[in-house]
Amino acid sequence: MAGKRTIGDTEASTSVKTSRRSDPARVESRRHQILDAAAACFRRHGFRGASMSELSACAGMSTGHIYHYFKSKEAIVEAIVERCQQQGLALIESLKGADDILQTMVAKVGSAMTEMAKTADPGLVLEILAEASRNPVVAEIVRSKEATILRSLEEVLAAGQRQGTIDPAYHVPSLARLLSALFDGLSLHRAVSPDLDLGAINPLHQELLRRFLSPKA
Amino acid sequence: MAGKRTIGDTEASTSVKTSRRSDPARVESRRHQILDAAAACFRRHGFRGASMSELSACAGMSTGHIYHYFKSKEAIVEAIVERCQQQGLALIESLKGADDILQTMVAKVGSAMTEMAKTADPGLVLEILAEASRNPVVAEIVRSKEATILRSLEEVLAAGQRQGTIDPAYHVPSLARLLSALFDGLSLHRAVSPDLDLGAINPLHQELLRRFLSPKA
Repeated sequence: MAGKRTIGDTEASTSVKTSRRSDPARVESRRHQILDAAAACFRRHGFRGASMSELSACAGMSTGHIYHYFKSKEAIVEAIVERCQQQGLALIESLKGADDILQTMVAKVGSAMTEMAKTADPGLVLEILAEASRNPVVAEIVRSKEATILRSLEEVLAAGQRQGTIDPAYHVPSLARLLSALFDGLSLHRAVSPDLDLGAINPLHQELLRRFLSPKA
Repeated sequence: MAGKRTIGDTEASTSVKTSRRSDPARVESRRHQILDAAAACFRRHGFRGASMSELSACAGMSTGHIYHYFKSKEAIVEAIVERCQQQGLALIESLKGADDILQTMVAKVGSAMTEMAKTADPGLVLEILAEASRNPVVAEIVRSKEATILRSLEEVLAAGQRQGTIDPAYHVPSLARLLSALFDGLSLHRAVSPDLDLGAINPLHQELLRRFLSPKA
């Protein structure tokens, strides 16, 4: 297929294509275009129902073109999961330099939930998680991305323990798991009940973090 | 179809069939057989991929026979969701008469998580939730079943507030939502990481409930 040339597809035009394809901004924008189309496609047809040719129709690109940017459907899933986690990871990373990690976490968690409610697509996340429970390759992708979040959260929590704002009695990996489960559970509930009243829940979420994480007086 | 008779399908044998089909224990066992087969089928093929004829093959029954017990694929989903929630609902109900609701909740939550880890199928739950985010009929089923859990939990929490074991400062519906999100989030994490160390997480989960829910000293 790669060797096939249409009329007018001279060496010169091929070299233009190559340089366009390797322009980082253009590559990035193409990748985003494919990920948006794939996300919509997974949501509509389910992961199983969305074949590479279906994806190609959604994205308005040939499958060959898609393969230029992503080597497989799994590579697309990996990039989607990464994109879904970006906000959460950025929130965690932003806590790392804080003078009072607990207070900063409490201050930021409400707006982070509200922000995520605006931009994230919990239905897409569920679709990928459902596939992960069935498909070992997707499971490994999800686990490895989740491990990145958990590691980063563990670093923040351990730093909080060292600075004395987070109770040092807690086992850090379990604590990270519990807090991230709470966050993910709320996203899950929002997927089922999009009208979830975050305005009422956020203050309780903050109070939970304050009471649970503070060192015992 | 219902009027068609095969050779030997006399009035007498029809009446035996009818009485068998209306025997409550037999009906219950047939329904369970169908739900087990449907659960396996949804897990393997996804909700979309599992047509009624696929379900009939999985269950080893004719589609007509299945329709006798469940009027649609959605009715099967409703029964599966109900079955998935039974354990959680039983746990909540068991707290209602407790002298100290908070202490009883703390005492039971660890073993409930461990028990649920043994019997529940979080992959199946994810499959149904993913479908709910796409299919309004399934969404309504999930929301209505979830409302049952939340209402029951609200009753328990309000009773805890009245007896003074749970902080009366909390807004009960938001509190119920937050606690059930935590529980569901942990199930979600277990779906992705089946080797999740509940032995390490349970004591923290209990400490969270104790510190968060107790009235301020």
